Amino acid sequence: MNEGKPVKDSIVIHEKLMMPSDSNPSWRGGALELGAINGGSILNLIDNVAGLCALRHCRSRVVTASIDRMDFLNPVHVGELLILRASVNYTGTKSLEVGVRVETENLNTGETSKTGSAYLTFVAVDEFGRAIPVPPVLPQSEDEKRRFEDAKQRKAKRMELVKSNKMKK
Amino acid sequence: MNEGKPVKDSIVIHEKLMMPSDSNPSWRGGALELGAINGGSILNLIDNVAGLCALRHCRSRVVTASIDRMDFLNPVHVGELLILRASVNYTGTKSLEVGVRVETENLNTGETSKTGSAYLTFVAVDEFGRAIPVPPVLPQSEDEKRRFEDAKQRKAKRMELVKSNKMKK
Amino acid sequence: MNEGKPVKDSIVIHEKLMMPSDSNPSWRGGALELGAINGGSILNLIDNVAGLCALRHCRSRVVTASIDRMDFLNPVHVGELLILRASVNYTGTKSLEVGVRVETENLNTGETSKTGSAYLTFVAVDEFGRAIPVPPVLPQSEDEKRRFEDAKQRKAKRMELVKSNKMKK
Amino acid sequence: MNEGKPVKDSIVIHEKLMMPSDSNPSWRGGALELGAINGGSILNLIDNVAGLCALRHCRSRVVTASIDRMDFLNPVHVGELLILRASVNYTGTKSLEVGVRVETENLNTGETSKTGSAYLTFVAVDEFGRAIPVPPVLPQSEDEKRRFEDAKQRKAKRMELVKSNKMKK
Amino acid sequence: MNEGKPVKDSIVIHEKLMMPSDSNPSWRGGALELGAINGGSILNLIDNVAGLCALRHCRSRVVTASIDRMDFLNPVHVGELLILRASVNYTGTKSLEVGVRVETENLNTGETSKTGSAYLTFVAVDEFGRAIPVPPVLPQSEDEKRRFEDAKQRKAKRMELVKSNKMKK
Amino acid sequence: MNEGKPVKDSIVIHEKLMMPSDSNPSWRGGALELGAINGGSILNLIDNVAGLCALRHCRSRVVTASIDRMDFLNPVHVGELLILRASVNYTGTKSLEVGVRVETENLNTGETSKTGSAYLTFVAVDEFGRAIPVPPVLPQSEDEKRRFEDAKQRKAKRMELVKSNKMKK
Repeated sequence: MNEGKPVKDSIVIHEKLMMPSDSNPSWRGGALELGAINGGSILNLIDNVAGLCALRHCRSRVVTASIDRMDFLNPVHVGELLILRASVNYTGTKSLEVGVRVETENLNTGETSKTGSAYLTFVAVDEFGRAIPVPPVLPQSEDEKRRFEDAKQRKAKRMELVKSNKMKK
Repeated sequence: MNEGKPVKDSIVIHEKLMMPSDSNPSWRGGALELGAINGGSILNLIDNVAGLCALRHCRSRVVTASIDRMDFLNPVHVGELLILRASVNYTGTKSLEVGVRVETENLNTGETSKTGSAYLTFVAVDEFGRAIPVPPVLPQSEDEKRRFEDAKQRKAKRMELVKSNKMKK
Repeated sequence: MNEGKPVKDSIVIHEKLMMPSDSNPSWRGGALELGAINGGSILNLIDNVAGLCALRHCRSRVVTASIDRMDFLNPVHVGELLILRASVNYTGTKSLEVGVRVETENLNTGETSKTGSAYLTFVAVDEFGRAIPVPPVLPQSEDEKRRFEDAKQRKAKRMELVKSNKMKK
Repeated sequence: MNEGKPVKDSIVIHEKLMMPSDSNPSWRGGALELGAINGGSILNLIDNVAGLCALRHCRSRVVTASIDRMDFLNPVHVGELLILRASVNYTGTKSLEVGVRVETENLNTGETSKTGSAYLTFVAVDEFGRAIPVPPVLPQSEDEKRRFEDAKQRKAKRMELVKSNKMKK
Repeated sequence: MNEGKPVKDSIVIHEKLMMPSDSNPSWRGGALELGAINGGSILNLIDNVAGLCALRHCRSRVVTASIDRMDFLNPVHVGELLILRASVNYTGTKSLEVGVRVETENLNTGETSKTGSAYLTFVAVDEFGRAIPVPPVLPQSEDEKRRFEDAKQRKAKRMELVKSNKMKK
Repeated sequence: MNEGKPVKDSIVIHEKLMMPSDSNPSWRGGALELGAINGGSILNLIDNVAGLCALRHCRSRVVTASIDRMDFLNPVHVGELLILRASVNYTGTKSLEVGVRVETENLNTGETSKTGSAYLTFVAVDEFGRAIPVPPVLPQSEDEKRRFEDAKQRKAKRMELVKSNKMKK
């Protein structure tokens, strides 16, 4: 369980057509509009895909501990395709960071645009919900190594932020 | 459209029973477990409730621009009640921050525990998706005034973070 | 379990955006219309909110025993907000009546209109589905006392109606 | 549009397996229970089936105007089959009454039990939501004639009740 | 359990309104279209109705073993009614064939058109998933006898096809 | 629109956790079981993924014309991961064949097993539903060329089968 695992073994790719139920309907001048996809639907997919990636890496139950700040760079619309790609960025002793890159594809033209990227922290837990050790990830490519270092720094920053937030309360 | 509006006019309270479909099923020793609620389901509800609050304040279409880092403080389970309370914290010229406090109620005992809190930024848009002015919020109570100031500082910090993130890329 | 509880301790407020899936689509002259919300979707929400209110009062499992006649006063449309408010009207020894008031908010203008009100009777049950005692409700305000008396009379009328229906069959 | 139509031309039969999502999950002594089906899920199906029956009779859009008091005679459980049968009982000039009989089948044994019956009133409307004439129903069998007379009396009673309710308010 | 059962005892009829969620949304020239129903939604309903029919015949758990080739003869649209009718065609010792006929009704006019027909094979299984004997079906009408013979021949052909496919791999 | 496109440009990979709502619940000896996934849920996903692949190849609306016979080789369970991979096998002038390979992954162990494979035929259509030319696919690898030839033969066989079925009716 504790031997290292390469990043590529737990990558998850998920493509989903955006449906009317992912969008808040609104009425303007007598016509029903089903346009922009809710941020919440996208966040839900991000957590699902990231959790599946964490589960594949740990092969144990995982629980979302936190999601980092995320910006929605471009609006997504009903009828467009959301493309999510999740990979393990970093592992600590009992938690791991998963990064998710989100793109949108216009299905008529094939053009894609960046929707955003998110960093989520998961904790591996046993059947009683107690934290258990996370198998170390082995970054191999230059990209994977860079992401590992970036995540390490994010974790350090997060620790500081958590502390400063706690003090503010 | 530009006259100030009090915080209480757009508060949204939402209570929802957590269902098996909000949880990832897993198998342990031959038994199916439907236990911990996915972070994604909670994030989806947070965005929905925050968006409704922003919509009530602006009375125009709104789009999620970003969600701040959020920690999940306690696990939520199938069969528990999620209680979300959203209110406008701060308004800029073309965006507003909505804060959402999330609690969980054990329906057998009535005990509640804090699940977390989230800050989302929305942009008010017209029917063509172009940003339009946001009516100013009028914080009245001490709490509302403190949240306004906190959000103002968060916005300043966010601006810095966005800049430093941009430079890193 | 048998001490009295005030009405306000179990009030449930629920606000939900009406979605295309709550409406039967129909075609007129080549155009798809997603207009009026199905009565069934509204009845479903009414029972959910009333059941949650009964559960909060009893802190035991509850089962819907009946729903009183309900009139739909105004049509509700996709993209409008349904606002439901449930409170305990009356408690007998093994059953209780919950009243639900339903309003609709036009999200563009903020105007609300009354959709209807419903009275549901629930039975508190143990884990084997057997009826158990219901904690008495303590109406406090004038409104709560009036609703208690109205519900008492409805119950008496219901008893008569059940009898006369049984005789007809 | 105004010529009479027999009852049998618009009968709707609907059979649906009851799913975990139709039941409120609850926890007892560490185990998750998914047992009794919510009244609201059953009411939703009743309105859907009745509306389809009204639509088939009128061949125009229809709107639920009211649902009569309904008693749930026996609990329904996840994994059981709900059997709904809707037929037009009565037609007035601009409204019609549809009756729905609900039974539950235990799929292991084939045994059925009565769940309840409901009477719903629908109004036929044009594309602008304005009431339009309803084609008269032609009851043929003894049963159909009896139901027509019963519905006529119910309508008369309903008229009285509406009046007395209005006076009370 | 092994005595013969007539075809009519397990017939299942299912009517369902086609919703926007059954159709892939697409954009043409700035307008959102919700038109043709996905084949997948229809296949899902076919399997559900056929499985219910098999379950009613066997009164034991059943598992889909295969679905025969199916042609979609006419497109189905959002807002139309899908009518499915499933009946047992043939029983072997441990499997049975269920036939499903699918029609579409235009709810404005009442006109129906054939959508297609499908043949599915199910295996009856015990609680551990092991195949158990299937009660023999007793075809009675000329139609039922013809369908029994056709299914018998299909099974023979299937056996050949399975063999030739296996050899190709 | 008519220039050839390589197979790899339209490959779709889709991974989805199987949920309780994808399985028919049943009761055995007092316990609720949520075990084997319905064939219909799998067929639905197969058609969705294949349709997305066809859409990506054609960049026009596509309609499912038929699905070939499919065998379910191994049961799939709630809590397992379904992995679908769709690619264009063959293109004719106005239709194309998409092949979908379905595997199941046990998320605790990482073991995968083959669930089945399906061949679907799609027709590319314009906004009025009329068939339009399909861009030719360019098989490049040995595998892609073999699949192209296999599909060509399947099409020929299908033509014969359609003819013989028509004559039987």
